[in-house]
Amino acid sequence: MDRIIYTVIISFVLTLALGVAIIPMLKKLKMGQNIRDDGPKSHYSKAGTPTMGGIMFIIPIVLVSLGLSTRSYDYVFAAVLSTLGFGAIGFIDDFIGIYMKRSLGLKSYQKILGQIIISVLFAFFAYRNVGSSVYIPFTNIEWDLGYFYIPIMAFIMIGTVNSVNLTDGLDGLASGVTLIVSMTISIIAAFAAHAVEQDGLIYLADNYKNLAIFSAAMTGGCLGFLRFNAHPAKVFMGDTGSMALGGGVVAVMVLLKLPLLLPIVGGIYMAESLSVILQVISFKSRGKRIFRMSPLHHHFELGGMPETRVVAMFMIATALLCLIGLLAV
Amino acid sequence: MDRIIYTVIISFVLTLALGVAIIPMLKKLKMGQNIRDDGPKSHYSKAGTPTMGGIMFIIPIVLVSLGLSTRSYDYVFAAVLSTLGFGAIGFIDDFIGIYMKRSLGLKSYQKILGQIIISVLFAFFAYRNVGSSVYIPFTNIEWDLGYFYIPIMAFIMIGTVNSVNLTDGLDGLASGVTLIVSMTISIIAAFAAHAVEQDGLIYLADNYKNLAIFSAAMTGGCLGFLRFNAHPAKVFMGDTGSMALGGGVVAVMVLLKLPLLLPIVGGIYMAESLSVILQVISFKSRGKRIFRMSPLHHHFELGGMPETRVVAMFMIATALLCLIGLLAV
Repeated sequence: MDRIIYTVIISFVLTLALGVAIIPMLKKLKMGQNIRDDGPKSHYSKAGTPTMGGIMFIIPIVLVSLGLSTRSYDYVFAAVLSTLGFGAIGFIDDFIGIYMKRSLGLKSYQKILGQIIISVLFAFFAYRNVGSSVYIPFTNIEWDLGYFYIPIMAFIMIGTVNSVNLTDGLDGLASGVTLIVSMTISIIAAFAAHAVEQDGLIYLADNYKNLAIFSAAMTGGCLGFLRFNAHPAKVFMGDTGSMALGGGVVAVMVLLKLPLLLPIVGGIYMAESLSVILQVISFKSRGKRIFRMSPLHHHFELGGMPETRVVAMFMIATALLCLIGLLAV
Repeated sequence: MDRIIYTVIISFVLTLALGVAIIPMLKKLKMGQNIRDDGPKSHYSKAGTPTMGGIMFIIPIVLVSLGLSTRSYDYVFAAVLSTLGFGAIGFIDDFIGIYMKRSLGLKSYQKILGQIIISVLFAFFAYRNVGSSVYIPFTNIEWDLGYFYIPIMAFIMIGTVNSVNLTDGLDGLASGVTLIVSMTISIIAAFAAHAVEQDGLIYLADNYKNLAIFSAAMTGGCLGFLRFNAHPAKVFMGDTGSMALGGGVVAVMVLLKLPLLLPIVGGIYMAESLSVILQVISFKSRGKRIFRMSPLHHHFELGGMPETRVVAMFMIATALLCLIGLLAV
């Protein structure tokens, strides 16, 4: 437990230090986010806020989680690579977006292609090292997916990463929600380590402990980032940050055999994604919109709820969902 | 652990429900806060926001913590009475303030007198039932205070309650900070229960477990309250709320023999208080102010930091301090 706390603190301090160093640089390089011109009008004033701030927590997450891990590194390496892989796609996306002065960077098919490659590779690693079964929440039942494991995990990974990406649309939203989610995952991983240790599975316990460290590093990173990202934001994480966080969260959940817990603890990510999907389906099939605007957070904003209160509400909902998630394992 | 999670969830839901019921009532009764006319000008627009919202978490805290406690009730009863006692002083203060249309309600000496009575009674109870020693953070040393225990505990209680009261000056600040503090205290109490249970002290373990439940009820209450209190606040907790929270937090810490941990986990409360004391001393002795305005949160605000970012910063600092606090026990 002490090691988890140290991890959060060190990762937090490093993120803070990097923030102080990097934000002026991002500003100078004109790494300002181009605000989507079809978004809420109140967001136009955010143009010019530097983006790609995700860098300032990705570096600490990687360094601290590897630095404080011990013995069995397989799982934590995989989680770090997932974070870096998806983060790299986001980075390229941000970079092209800024240099070509388009709000959207990579073309959709390029982004999806990159995501498919990373997630299939990861799912294959998990299939070979973790096995092809997943736990069903609120039960002790392991569900063996057989060969379907790989495509299903890949689908879950791509879905999660893009959902976290969609969640990143209000000051402090993605970082605040992921702060709570990653803290919860860290606790779950620590409990899992304790449980398998009791069964004498020392190697697996070490791997789980390192996943707890990794998640704690994400918590510290989000906490540090919030210092700059809380409303009114001085910096955005960009696709760089949101895809990296999504890649980290989903990697840990897959390695813990708990991807089916994601709809609970990551309920806000899910809701954001679903709102977009439902909106598109509804508009294409009936010509009518369900939400005032998707993703979901804009729906509440356009309903007159101030941005800060939407963020508070989504964070509170996440806290509740994470408590329920803790009951489910 | 499951019982702690249920407590948070139930207390949260009740607070939310009470909020929906009570806020319109408070508005009708014109329970609007009179904003201090010597405060920052940007706060004048907050006039008319209903106050005394603390009621909506005090009721759930009391009901849920007593409802979910088991067996040994001494400690949790004492904590509940401290919450209700200090909350009552706050309530009278709010009530007089509103009806007499003064920003300040009770006269200072009346407030302090009430606080002295409650805290001396509580300290006497603790002296008889917990003993006259306290733990020194980062050590296993118990420090026996002898007869000095009673006045020292009373002083700590009054100091804490008034510090939480001072912290309540920005949207979501007191509730956000206390959310984190109470969650931490709940974890500490649960660990303490586990430790003494191992030593065969079943009766004490039950009492500690109930304190963990009580703290978790505070966490749920703060979480529910934040739904309405997050910027821009629809309701303030008033002295009713801040004194009740202060009374609850300090009661648990005294009963756990950990009042000396308060300067760490409650570092923000301390900083707010100290800023007021130092400001007054400096102004009276040298005619100069140290801070642009006290309590501390106004100093940052007048330095140009937006209210929401001050709150985020203070909550982040509290998260860090609470992690350090967990290392200290």
